[in-house]
Amino acid sequence: MQFTRQGVVQEVHMEATKYVYSYDEADGSNRQLLGGKGAGLAEMTQIGLPVPPGFVITTEACRRYYHEGGELPSEVLTQMNDQIRLLEKKTERSFGNPNHPLLVSVRSGAAISMPGMMDTILNLGLNDDVVEGLAEATQNGRFAFDTYRRLIQLFGKVALGIDDAYFDVMLREAKNCAGVESDTDLDVETLQTICEDFKQCIKREGHQVFPQDPWKQLEIATKAVFRSWIGKRAVDYRKEFRITADMANGTAVNVCTMVFGNMGSSSATGVAFTRDPGTGENVLFGEYLTNAQGEDVVAGIRTPKAIAEMRQEMPTQYQELEQVRHTLERHYHEVQDFEFTIELGKLYVLQTRNGKMNATALAKTSRDLVREKILTKEESLLRISPEHLEQLLHRRIDPKAEAKPLVQGIPASPGAAIGFVVFDADEAERRGMLGESVILVREETKPEDIHGFFRAKGILTSRGGKTSHAAVVARGMGKPCVVGCEEILIDERNRVAIVNEHHIPEGDVITIDGANGFIYRGEVPTVEPQFGPDLKTILRWADEIRTLGVRGNADTPKDAALSKRLGAEGIGLCRTERMFNASDRLPIVREMILANTAEERQRAIDKLFPMQKGDFKKILKKMDGLPVTIRLLDPPLHEFLPTVESLLWEIERLKEVKKSLQQLESIPDSFKIILEPSLRKHVAPIEHIMGEISEIREKSLFDELLARKEEILRKVRETAEVNPMLGHRGVRLGIKYPEIYKMQIQAVLEAAAELIKEGADVQPEIMVPQVCTAQELKQVHRWVDDIHTSVDQKHGVTVAFKFGTMIEVVRACMRAGRLAEVTDFFSFGTNDLTQATFSFSREDAEQKFLPLYNEMQILMDNPFDILDIKGVGRLMKLTMEWGKKTNPGLKVGICGEHGGNPRSIEFCHTLGLNYVSCSSFRVPIARLVAAQARLRELRRDKKDREDPNYPFNVFF
Amino acid sequence: MQFTRQGVVQEVHMEATKYVYSYDEADGSNRQLLGGKGAGLAEMTQIGLPVPPGFVITTEACRRYYHEGGELPSEVLTQMNDQIRLLEKKTERSFGNPNHPLLVSVRSGAAISMPGMMDTILNLGLNDDVVEGLAEATQNGRFAFDTYRRLIQLFGKVALGIDDAYFDVMLREAKNCAGVESDTDLDVETLQTICEDFKQCIKREGHQVFPQDPWKQLEIATKAVFRSWIGKRAVDYRKEFRITADMANGTAVNVCTMVFGNMGSSSATGVAFTRDPGTGENVLFGEYLTNAQGEDVVAGIRTPKAIAEMRQEMPTQYQELEQVRHTLERHYHEVQDFEFTIELGKLYVLQTRNGKMNATALAKTSRDLVREKILTKEESLLRISPEHLEQLLHRRIDPKAEAKPLVQGIPASPGAAIGFVVFDADEAERRGMLGESVILVREETKPEDIHGFFRAKGILTSRGGKTSHAAVVARGMGKPCVVGCEEILIDERNRVAIVNEHHIPEGDVITIDGANGFIYRGEVPTVEPQFGPDLKTILRWADEIRTLGVRGNADTPKDAALSKRLGAEGIGLCRTERMFNASDRLPIVREMILANTAEERQRAIDKLFPMQKGDFKKILKKMDGLPVTIRLLDPPLHEFLPTVESLLWEIERLKEVKKSLQQLESIPDSFKIILEPSLRKHVAPIEHIMGEISEIREKSLFDELLARKEEILRKVRETAEVNPMLGHRGVRLGIKYPEIYKMQIQAVLEAAAELIKEGADVQPEIMVPQVCTAQELKQVHRWVDDIHTSVDQKHGVTVAFKFGTMIEVVRACMRAGRLAEVTDFFSFGTNDLTQATFSFSREDAEQKFLPLYNEMQILMDNPFDILDIKGVGRLMKLTMEWGKKTNPGLKVGICGEHGGNPRSIEFCHTLGLNYVSCSSFRVPIARLVAAQARLRELRRDKKDREDPNYPFNVFF
Repeated sequence: MQFTRQGVVQEVHMEATKYVYSYDEADGSNRQLLGGKGAGLAEMTQIGLPVPPGFVITTEACRRYYHEGGELPSEVLTQMNDQIRLLEKKTERSFGNPNHPLLVSVRSGAAISMPGMMDTILNLGLNDDVVEGLAEATQNGRFAFDTYRRLIQLFGKVALGIDDAYFDVMLREAKNCAGVESDTDLDVETLQTICEDFKQCIKREGHQVFPQDPWKQLEIATKAVFRSWIGKRAVDYRKEFRITADMANGTAVNVCTMVFGNMGSSSATGVAFTRDPGTGENVLFGEYLTNAQGEDVVAGIRTPKAIAEMRQEMPTQYQELEQVRHTLERHYHEVQDFEFTIELGKLYVLQTRNGKMNATALAKTSRDLVREKILTKEESLLRISPEHLEQLLHRRIDPKAEAKPLVQGIPASPGAAIGFVVFDADEAERRGMLGESVILVREETKPEDIHGFFRAKGILTSRGGKTSHAAVVARGMGKPCVVGCEEILIDERNRVAIVNEHHIPEGDVITIDGANGFIYRGEVPTVEPQFGPDLKTILRWADEIRTLGVRGNADTPKDAALSKRLGAEGIGLCRTERMFNASDRLPIVREMILANTAEERQRAIDKLFPMQKGDFKKILKKMDGLPVTIRLLDPPLHEFLPTVESLLWEIERLKEVKKSLQQLESIPDSFKIILEPSLRKHVAPIEHIMGEISEIREKSLFDELLARKEEILRKVRETAEVNPMLGHRGVRLGIKYPEIYKMQIQAVLEAAAELIKEGADVQPEIMVPQVCTAQELKQVHRWVDDIHTSVDQKHGVTVAFKFGTMIEVVRACMRAGRLAEVTDFFSFGTNDLTQATFSFSREDAEQKFLPLYNEMQILMDNPFDILDIKGVGRLMKLTMEWGKKTNPGLKVGICGEHGGNPRSIEFCHTLGLNYVSCSSFRVPIARLVAAQARLRELRRDKKDREDPNYPFNVFF
Repeated sequence: MQFTRQGVVQEVHMEATKYVYSYDEADGSNRQLLGGKGAGLAEMTQIGLPVPPGFVITTEACRRYYHEGGELPSEVLTQMNDQIRLLEKKTERSFGNPNHPLLVSVRSGAAISMPGMMDTILNLGLNDDVVEGLAEATQNGRFAFDTYRRLIQLFGKVALGIDDAYFDVMLREAKNCAGVESDTDLDVETLQTICEDFKQCIKREGHQVFPQDPWKQLEIATKAVFRSWIGKRAVDYRKEFRITADMANGTAVNVCTMVFGNMGSSSATGVAFTRDPGTGENVLFGEYLTNAQGEDVVAGIRTPKAIAEMRQEMPTQYQELEQVRHTLERHYHEVQDFEFTIELGKLYVLQTRNGKMNATALAKTSRDLVREKILTKEESLLRISPEHLEQLLHRRIDPKAEAKPLVQGIPASPGAAIGFVVFDADEAERRGMLGESVILVREETKPEDIHGFFRAKGILTSRGGKTSHAAVVARGMGKPCVVGCEEILIDERNRVAIVNEHHIPEGDVITIDGANGFIYRGEVPTVEPQFGPDLKTILRWADEIRTLGVRGNADTPKDAALSKRLGAEGIGLCRTERMFNASDRLPIVREMILANTAEERQRAIDKLFPMQKGDFKKILKKMDGLPVTIRLLDPPLHEFLPTVESLLWEIERLKEVKKSLQQLESIPDSFKIILEPSLRKHVAPIEHIMGEISEIREKSLFDELLARKEEILRKVRETAEVNPMLGHRGVRLGIKYPEIYKMQIQAVLEAAAELIKEGADVQPEIMVPQVCTAQELKQVHRWVDDIHTSVDQKHGVTVAFKFGTMIEVVRACMRAGRLAEVTDFFSFGTNDLTQATFSFSREDAEQKFLPLYNEMQILMDNPFDILDIKGVGRLMKLTMEWGKKTNPGLKVGICGEHGGNPRSIEFCHTLGLNYVSCSSFRVPIARLVAAQARLRELRRDKKDREDPNYPFNVFF
């Protein structure tokens, strides 16, 4: 053929795009096109699993739908038509035919699993005629009309946007009238009436007649599912889980032959995991309900049976399920979470997806799947998300705590959570945004509650099982969750939960334990988590793979020990001021600050020296052989003093008393008795002040005390600052009061010298905070040099140490080349650096406008939680480049809170930092993420990695 | 020759360096090597002016001196020896020979003039024998011993570091004993005794014998001069005037045959300018003293005569001087300041240097020298320093002010200054550093007072003339100065100045007028400066040359008019909040802030709208045809509210009164009279508060008022911030309260539309402050778009405007590429950007540690005064590059205070900014500096300009 380039292109355009694929023909590896559910059904069909015949309308059709302004293009409709015809052939049933009706489900399914976030309509194909036919064919009028009722309800809610409450109320009233508890106890006549009422409701509330034409139903349902892609729930979910357009752009629609688990006792429906998602044990795990439709299990309306019971109840089908489980795992190389229905004894698999597990289970299965050679070590590391690992880092209820649980539910997601009770998702979101810890307590949760999950510390429901919505979502998020706690009566209207005789109003504190299902009133003591051997193995693998170092932030020997135990390779930040704040030291620190002469100040400093030396000795010893980065004093001095307001209050009170006393003197004795009670009222609240200096009480109580308070107030005012964040702190303080820094340097070096003499291996690193120019570092380095020489001489040893600077001032970034010339290492202090880069004061911003900024998507994240790669990250890159240019041996780390944030850790690795340092509990996360970052980096295109804009080109 | 590379190098080393040059042979263009004075003397010698024979020891020798640890290398000594031998030949005198003694002066002289900053020793070569010979040869014993006395004194002070006070006291006592006023009245015996006493003093205080060997004297004196290069005075001076090592690295030493102006009435000494340095008039200008040595004129010890008198007194020499003046100007192409001495009728020129003039004189001579074709326009522009121009921008005494001067002195440097009287330089420095305005008042000033000059607003002396130290230095600095105000008696011990019967203690305020010499008590009203035609011409030349635009910062129509009059090409920053602060608006602004509902807020905003529109209209109209950049509201809302402390005080007082009233009620009537006075005491200080709402007084006064105050307090606390500099301000406020920004945008666009209809040419530019992300700009831009459309429709015109952002948040720099995509212009807000870059809060830093940092040279400048090129400047460069990459048409300006700082303006030009915007009074300076920057840029090496690190490579 001699087509021009143009011609070929035209031909491609003219070739009709295929928008609809049957499960036999679709390419199951193309999740982008088919969505996860569609891809899964296609794959399962093609590997021979019993999937009901069906087809998938692609995500491309969805994009066309939006492109056409909410209409389905005619070619899509035509192709759907063709596929329905094929289905009719395969099933030997026919759409709209009362005698052999073809009924289908219409389900959403995006490339990335968003469980419950979009809409589903079941039983499509029924109408007033077909339902009669179905009743006759199945000899089960109750079943037929219940099925019809479900269709009308779902169609009304999903396709026409009618509030579900209308249908719920009608159904509840019908049950009340009939005097029955459960839907299944309603008789056929009642169900017929309900169907009629539902159709009336659709006419009244939806302003249209329920469509009797199955084709019309299908078209409307398909459009509704497409539309649900931009529903609030779905949008929120994508935002929270950072699902971007290139990860999932639109949803596919699955049209699948209905199979019924509610056709009697030989029918059932259930959800299963190929392994236990709570423990990771290699057993079929799940729940089922006989004579029920799928949503009954998921919504937790009836409490289902454990799948093990099926072994007795339906032995053949149980064996078939075991077979399905093995086939799925070998095929997907991953634990699967699948849905099934048994219709009159015949098993169908309706969906499969990767199983969401808690960390324990993830760890165990990761280790097992490697052992079973289903996964490689690298694959197994990549399947554990840091969010899951975080579960294990949650605290547990202290085993020694003697708290008595109020009640026990079904443990659904492990970990202990403490918080204020709230009864709806909106309230959970509101109070959560304010930084409060809340426990979301509901009868059952629904997909529309998702925003409350994000902000809650834990979830408690009174209904539903381990695979209920609440359980699945909470596990996915790694949040503690207890479900099916039926003894709790939740009165949403009065906003109170009643357990036996106990009333728990909204706002009361409870503690829940997702590991055993216990619920406690009030706050119960919790303890640190401990790691099992599975996780230890996996983290060892991570350590083998990662190239990024991981250190801990620790200010005390106890912290240091914990960091080390959790795998830290050193201490990246030891804040000396925390030692100043200890209750036995604060008075001395205040003495130092309030000193009026250099001698007074030196006296106080001399008292602090042995304490600091002792601290450093203990930490250095604890970290034997590992580096310890000690930051010289950072905060402004006024942080160690009482506040102006508290002092003013005390002074005002003292003056009041004094005045009252004076009035008393000027009044004849006989009337004093009248005034004395009011005087006593004045004195009472300040007795603690006067108690401070008891001997004064004897003498001229008020004047001396007042003078003293006023002197302190004067100092406090003197050290007060307009913008303390940008104030007289860090090295600026060190330069103004050299004796403080010199004392600290001496304490570090003497501690090291003494330990060396004891035979220890110490690696102290002295770090200077708030540096903005190399001159500051040179000044401090001169002191270090002098003290180093004298300490070495005094102790007859050679103390090896490193000297470095925090990079937390923007100017330090700009001057990185010069700073690097006089330092061994940089450590990014991204907390302060973020404040300076944004000109956001953290406290002010988080309270005043950051939530609004996040809500309006002016900023996607809180930059104090997640490192702002575009701004702060770019500064970091420049700093690295300039610093390494003048000092190629420069070590660079990060010690801000971001060092424990997974996304930020990955960025740090990619940028080429030597280590991250984070709070002890984040150390395991950092170890895992560092390995994952390394693995992902290895998979990256060379072209991307060599782009001068790397890593910014791959992070957005 | 077949030297190895090594061999050649060795030979170069072995060739003796020439360290000492006679004035006949030295290359006068090499100021770096010879110093300014040495170069001048060499040049003058070689163009035939009468310079006493002498030689110069180079700055290279000075560096060798430091290199050798304070010793003179033998080759330097040898070469000095050789030159002295030459001098002996030329003068037919001999070193140390009592009959024909060679006497020399030893003077410092660096490449850059540092008048009086280093040391000088005169009359070197005298000893106990030679003085006798000199007495005999001159037949003038008084002269000989006075000369010897001066040598011993200067040698003791300069070479041996003995406190001059010892000599002064001895001299004064001798005068007292002899009952004479002046040194010249002392008889020879007394002078002989003084010489002996001085030598004893040197032995006692200097621990050595005054050297009798002239060679020894010369060696010690030379070393002393070299040493004075690093004396405190010299170091301070270099720091203040930013003289760096490559501008002057070490001082040269001039050894010159002594000539004596104090050999009787046919001798004289004087200082002259080739033109009048106060007016620029083309006449010989200067002062002289007959029978005096040079230092007598400079130190202002005797009040000299105007040089015009010489025309009568010494007509021949006057004509010679006129000749010298023309020769010098034609040779140097610059007004010269030269020293001369007439020894027994023979004129000698002892020094020349470029004349320091005030701005008026500089302007006039610049214009004249161009007219006379001595200079080109470019050269004449470059000779005016911005500091001088600043003089003209100083305020003058209001001609309409009816203040009566206390006294009149000699006007020495124009401009009016108001300040607290201080009597020594240390105090001037101390209080000046605290930001106080001070006037340094002294009998006479000396070089060691230099640090006081830097911090004083003006200088007043009771002695000395127009060429006294005080006058020369003050003129150099462009500070108002009055000298020789002999009616003022200064009692330094009691720290009071007495004028007739008036006592002016330290700390009192005075006003001085350097233009006419008047001194006033207290503060006298001053007015804006006005420009003469000379300056206007020069600034016009500057406008022709410069490529950098200059705009003014103006918040009111009056400001705008002033900016325009001073040559601004637009308004670069119009701060809308200044309009909020006007007394008629503040109550409405507070109403807006305290509003509890959106309606209340809108009501207040509706009241503000016409006011803002009116403001904008006036400013836009005033700037007809020129752009006006209007910044939307920037400061946090709490800036418009009263402080917590003031509210707390009011509330506390109200409560006190209430309590007292209650007590009164509970006490029997008969005793009330006792308590009432104390109650009245309470009420008095708060009567103004109660007055606020007078009608309440009738009813339940305290409760309502208290409630109201507490409500305000609550709001104030709510809006209070930990770090207001990093707080809820700028666009963050605009996003939270869109109605405020919308009102302002509407006001700008409607003002423009109405003016367009009136036929005006308006160029409004809307600028958004505190931006950190493009999303903020997009949000504001949506409002602008909407409002723009509706305004255009409403008025039936098309308002053209620009939309831009301040760049004052570091993140905005990092995101410059994105921000540029949605803006027409950037304007650097370097005040805030400097705070954020350094993490310095300006107020805190300047008070708490910046002075110390400057003193310790950790930072060379206050970055809030002078743009920090290395840090902030580097950020600016990145921002420019990134911004222009995505938006090549982007206009970039600066509107921080640095826009008026000369060094910073030069950097802005070099960086390629489109304009600087500064306060109105700085506009002429910016015009001049922009032209100078352009001229200097044109002279720069191509290699430098093409360096990727440009302009940083040339700015350091």
